[in-house]
Amino acid sequence: MGRTSDARERLIEAAGRLFHARSYEAVGVQELCDAAGVNKGSFYHYFPSKDDLAAAVIDAQWANVRDEILTPTLADDIAPLARIERFFARLARNQRSARKDLGVTPGCPLANLSGELCTHEPKLRRKLARVFVGMREAFEGTLHAAVAAGELPRGTDVPRAAEALVAFAEGALLLAAAHDDPGLVGRLGRLALGLVRAPSR
Amino acid sequence: MGRTSDARERLIEAAGRLFHARSYEAVGVQELCDAAGVNKGSFYHYFPSKDDLAAAVIDAQWANVRDEILTPTLADDIAPLARIERFFARLARNQRSARKDLGVTPGCPLANLSGELCTHEPKLRRKLARVFVGMREAFEGTLHAAVAAGELPRGTDVPRAAEALVAFAEGALLLAAAHDDPGLVGRLGRLALGLVRAPSR
Repeated sequence: MGRTSDARERLIEAAGRLFHARSYEAVGVQELCDAAGVNKGSFYHYFPSKDDLAAAVIDAQWANVRDEILTPTLADDIAPLARIERFFARLARNQRSARKDLGVTPGCPLANLSGELCTHEPKLRRKLARVFVGMREAFEGTLHAAVAAGELPRGTDVPRAAEALVAFAEGALLLAAAHDDPGLVGRLGRLALGLVRAPSR
Repeated sequence: MGRTSDARERLIEAAGRLFHARSYEAVGVQELCDAAGVNKGSFYHYFPSKDDLAAAVIDAQWANVRDEILTPTLADDIAPLARIERFFARLARNQRSARKDLGVTPGCPLANLSGELCTHEPKLRRKLARVFVGMREAFEGTLHAAVAAGELPRGTDVPRAAEALVAFAEGALLLAAAHDDPGLVGRLGRLALGLVRAPSR
C-alpha cells in the first residue's frame, strides 16, 4: 500500500531534481521512471502525461519556496521592511548551499521552468503565473504591515511594489545562475528596498 | 556561393525563432534543417553540434538587443536617468508588438535560454553571462553620465546599480511572459530608478 503512494512522491521528487539539473524537455519519461524506481505503468497511472507531472512538481516546489523561504523570512518577529532584507539574505544563503551540493548556482527552479515553458505550454504557464501571484501576495502582506507601521507612506502602490520585489528576486536569481555566483543575490538584495520606497509615478 | 553562406544565416534565424517559440531542447537538428531549408550535411558543416548553433543564436540575439534596444534608448539625446525610463518603456512596447505577432508575451529570449540551460550547459552559460555583462556595461555608461550630471550622488556604486537594472529588467520580462501581460514591464519599469537611487549599504 505504502509503496504505490510512495511512487507518486518519488516521481515528483526525481522530476523536480532532474528538470532543475537539466530541463523539462531534456528529461524523458523513461529516465524519470528509472530515477524514481517506478515502472511506466505506474507513471501513467499517476500522471497521464509529463505535463501533469510538471504541474505536480510546480506545486511541490512552490510549497517548498513558500514554507521554507517566504513564510519564515517574512514572519512578523522583526520590523516589516527588515523582513524583506532577510528574505534576500536567505535566498543568497540557499544559493550558496545549493551550489555546494550541485556544483553550480541553480537559480530558482520555478523561474527556470518558466523561462523554458511559458511561450509554448499555456497550461503550465498559467500554473506558474499563479505561483508568482502567491509570491506577490506574500510581499503584499509585508508591505501593508510596513505602511501600517509608518515605514512606507500611506499612498504606496502595494501590489505594484510587491510585484517589483518578485521580479527583482527572480531576475537576481537568473543572473546568479548565469554568472554561477550565489553572492550576487545578496549584493543586489541590499538595493531591493529602493523599489518599494520609490515614489509612485 | 551566396546560397551556402545564406544557409548559415537561415539556420541561425530559424533556431532563434524556434528556440524562443518552444525551447532549446524541444527542437531537434532535423526540424532546424527543415525550417531553414538546409540539409544535414550543411548544418554540420557550419555547426559541429546544436550547441554551436545555440552559441551563434546567442550572439545574434545579443546583437539585436544591443543595437535595437540598448543603444537607441540609452543614447545621450536626453538626460541620463530619463534614458533608463525610455529603456523600460521600449521593452514594454516590444513585448506588446511581439505578442501581436506570436500570440503570447515572449519575455527575453536570452533569459529564457538562460533559465533552461544554465544549470547543465556550462559553455552556453558562460556565453550568456558575457551577454549579461554587456547589458550591465551599457547601464554603467548611463549611470556614470548620471553621476557626472549630478542626477546621482558621487558615491553611487555604479556597477552594482547597473547589475540591479539588468536583474530587474530580466525579472520583469519573466513575469510578463508568465502572466502573458506585456504591460507589466512598463508598470514595473516606472519603479526602476528606485534601485539606482537607493543609498548604498
